[in-house]
Amino acid sequence: MKFSNPIEISWIASLINAELIGNKNDVATGINEIHRVENGDLVFVDHPKYYDTCLQSDASFIIINKAVECPAGKTLLVVAEPFEAYLKIVNHFNPFTPATTLIDPTSTIGEGTYVAPNVYIGHHVSIGNNCIIHPNVTIRENCIIGNNVIIQPGSVIGSDAFYYNTKKDREIWYKKMSSCGRVIIDDEVEIGAGCTIDRGVTHDTIIGKGTKLDNMVHIGHDVVVGKNCLFAAQVAIAGATKVEDGVILWGQVGVSKTLTIGKNAVVLGQSGVSTNLEGGKTYFGYTADEARKKMKELAWIKRIPEMWDRLNSQNQGTRD
Amino acid sequence: MKFSNPIEISWIASLINAELIGNKNDVATGINEIHRVENGDLVFVDHPKYYDTCLQSDASFIIINKAVECPAGKTLLVVAEPFEAYLKIVNHFNPFTPATTLIDPTSTIGEGTYVAPNVYIGHHVSIGNNCIIHPNVTIRENCIIGNNVIIQPGSVIGSDAFYYNTKKDREIWYKKMSSCGRVIIDDEVEIGAGCTIDRGVTHDTIIGKGTKLDNMVHIGHDVVVGKNCLFAAQVAIAGATKVEDGVILWGQVGVSKTLTIGKNAVVLGQSGVSTNLEGGKTYFGYTADEARKKMKELAWIKRIPEMWDRLNSQNQGTRD
Amino acid sequence: MKFSNPIEISWIASLINAELIGNKNDVATGINEIHRVENGDLVFVDHPKYYDTCLQSDASFIIINKAVECPAGKTLLVVAEPFEAYLKIVNHFNPFTPATTLIDPTSTIGEGTYVAPNVYIGHHVSIGNNCIIHPNVTIRENCIIGNNVIIQPGSVIGSDAFYYNTKKDREIWYKKMSSCGRVIIDDEVEIGAGCTIDRGVTHDTIIGKGTKLDNMVHIGHDVVVGKNCLFAAQVAIAGATKVEDGVILWGQVGVSKTLTIGKNAVVLGQSGVSTNLEGGKTYFGYTADEARKKMKELAWIKRIPEMWDRLNSQNQGTRD
Repeated sequence: MKFSNPIEISWIASLINAELIGNKNDVATGINEIHRVENGDLVFVDHPKYYDTCLQSDASFIIINKAVECPAGKTLLVVAEPFEAYLKIVNHFNPFTPATTLIDPTSTIGEGTYVAPNVYIGHHVSIGNNCIIHPNVTIRENCIIGNNVIIQPGSVIGSDAFYYNTKKDREIWYKKMSSCGRVIIDDEVEIGAGCTIDRGVTHDTIIGKGTKLDNMVHIGHDVVVGKNCLFAAQVAIAGATKVEDGVILWGQVGVSKTLTIGKNAVVLGQSGVSTNLEGGKTYFGYTADEARKKMKELAWIKRIPEMWDRLNSQNQGTRD
Repeated sequence: MKFSNPIEISWIASLINAELIGNKNDVATGINEIHRVENGDLVFVDHPKYYDTCLQSDASFIIINKAVECPAGKTLLVVAEPFEAYLKIVNHFNPFTPATTLIDPTSTIGEGTYVAPNVYIGHHVSIGNNCIIHPNVTIRENCIIGNNVIIQPGSVIGSDAFYYNTKKDREIWYKKMSSCGRVIIDDEVEIGAGCTIDRGVTHDTIIGKGTKLDNMVHIGHDVVVGKNCLFAAQVAIAGATKVEDGVILWGQVGVSKTLTIGKNAVVLGQSGVSTNLEGGKTYFGYTADEARKKMKELAWIKRIPEMWDRLNSQNQGTRD
Repeated sequence: MKFSNPIEISWIASLINAELIGNKNDVATGINEIHRVENGDLVFVDHPKYYDTCLQSDASFIIINKAVECPAGKTLLVVAEPFEAYLKIVNHFNPFTPATTLIDPTSTIGEGTYVAPNVYIGHHVSIGNNCIIHPNVTIRENCIIGNNVIIQPGSVIGSDAFYYNTKKDREIWYKKMSSCGRVIIDDEVEIGAGCTIDRGVTHDTIIGKGTKLDNMVHIGHDVVVGKNCLFAAQVAIAGATKVEDGVILWGQVGVSKTLTIGKNAVVLGQSGVSTNLEGGKTYFGYTADEARKKMKELAWIKRIPEMWDRLNSQNQGTRD
């Protein structure tokens, strides 16, 4: 999330009651989680294991629970509870604003766009021209929908990320990271019925031009999908994965988080993808591998009994 | 889709600006995609690979992008862009009519039927007697629901088919085929919560009498399901597959397109069906095969290390 | 289901037109299906195969279709159609009450709780403090939601159980058991978008404190989930399974019915769980087994061709 204006870091320090170490006169331009952090951003870290990653990241301002050595040109904001401080900043700049009307008046709906009855559109949503938004669709705040987009009934655009701060030494292990990213859907995209597309945690979830989703497709937070992709029913893509242009995922495929699926790759139905996949090839199985290899494996499995028999007959032979 | 009245083919030719070859004085009774085409129908074809299939199909009128030889008794409608011509005809006879009310006044709701708050019912829907339509359900235009049907919350009946005209030499690879079929749900059917049942592309999707669907079941376009079937949660059935009477699909089963699952077949949880299945048997695995065979395969896999050891000890033996 | 007051068994006998055998002057305190039956309860049985189970259960009152010998201290209610009699009792004490407003006035909503537009809340629902109920959510009658609960858009709480009385010698094989249980969601729980949580058939479905569900998670009837569990997208848990505290189920995992998943177990993505799992371990595959065993199996499968080659070369060797 970028702030609408740069913010004095001293002001933020006083908001979260932090001790400042290092460069105290800088301005912050945004706040992001560690995978998406950019120069000018705040980031938080609350476990020594990740101190170095955060200190050496592009973040300019590190909210941290120990007064470690500050890298040159950066600023530490030392607090007892970095996650709570992070939440306080996010909620200050991006507060949850409860809607009271089905279609928030701050949203804009393009010419020729049809919004069916029972559609919810949160605040500051932008929808382009000639779209069809079917009944019982939910589009949450700040999402951006291009032109000629179709969203079939019951789908949810901009649900919160499934992303928690985890600590198993407290009563509630998982504390919710407020999602302050958006969903951006490009032109000519179609979203099937009953799909859910999570917003980014601090950045954006993006669906590229001309991509088509069948029903009940789940797209996790911060996923970036290219152009002209085709995802069949019940596909699920976990957080922050990148799917390049022209990828086809057949029904019930699952893709793990933070992976890259290369251009024009095809993944056959029910496959489970747990590694990066090179483009231009066809994959299959769990964990997904090149389809021709996997097909051979399946054929070999069927030959085990034959091997067993031969092994037995040889055994017989050598014993004679 | 059948037209409400037969239409002069010369009139259609002028609508889509086509050159007529062959029988120019006939009347068309409907329009269908190639898998569902009947005598009296229009069909379209835009790739030489499929010319023969369409010319030799039951279609009486072929919208085509080349002036090929016309089979006896048929009519060609030659245009530069057959898919766009097809869309123009479909949209002329079955235009998208945006609803402005939650329950369209052209729909009929039977005696004793309860429609909960927040249910959307599109135009010309027919719902029988003694049904329960739970909240946040969407029933789109022209669908037919029998008697004693229960539809649980959030389900979608009559969403568009996931069916596109594909050409990878243009900017947008996938262009949407307008779905002009319906969903027909017979008596005593129950649809779980969060299900999606796509309408037929040009024909109907049918759910037979007494069939019960658990939550989040996806039924693709033009699927025909028999009587007394049982589909557990998160089952997905792809387009134009036929499921005969009494079939049981356990949780998360996926069935590929245009298959036939025989009467009283049982498919165990998470199986992936990619071939026709004979009735009366139990299936399992990916790709699904008879369960007792698959169970043996799993048992054999566990014995590979034992085979390896024996192979090693023999090796030892023969080398001695 | 417990009755609000104890009911004379003679009164129930006349309601369902039953012949009473055994203790005729007792009072019933509730009605439950056989897996959940307690002392003071009615239960029904209509197949000789299950007579003994029901007669020897904790049920005090057995609705049965044959005048068998009555165990001491119990009561038989003999009727021709026990299932229909059971339904009549359930529907008498827990009739379906069609809502006419989006938020039923008999429901209570705690302080600081935000209910978005287009949310349906049935009768006698209780929602705690500081909850966020997002748009297009359905919460059906009698469900109980704790404090600080978030329910994301389109989710369904309290849908009917997928639970039928099955008889294949009648026209309609599957007859619906009316679900008279509830869903109880404890404090600090988060339910993702497009989830469905079925109510208990006669008891309650329970989600423990601090548990977090991603999108499109399906929880079957009478499932009991412990504290601080994490279920990723498209997980499905079938009826009456118990998931202990701290369990993690990754994306698209399916768990079969009436199982127990032990404390802090982790099940990797797409696994299919068909047996009880001991706590504290990581599982994988279909059917799910300890991950390190399954990983070895996958590695062994890849070595089959090598074994084949060695087998062939030995064969060669022994023939020489």
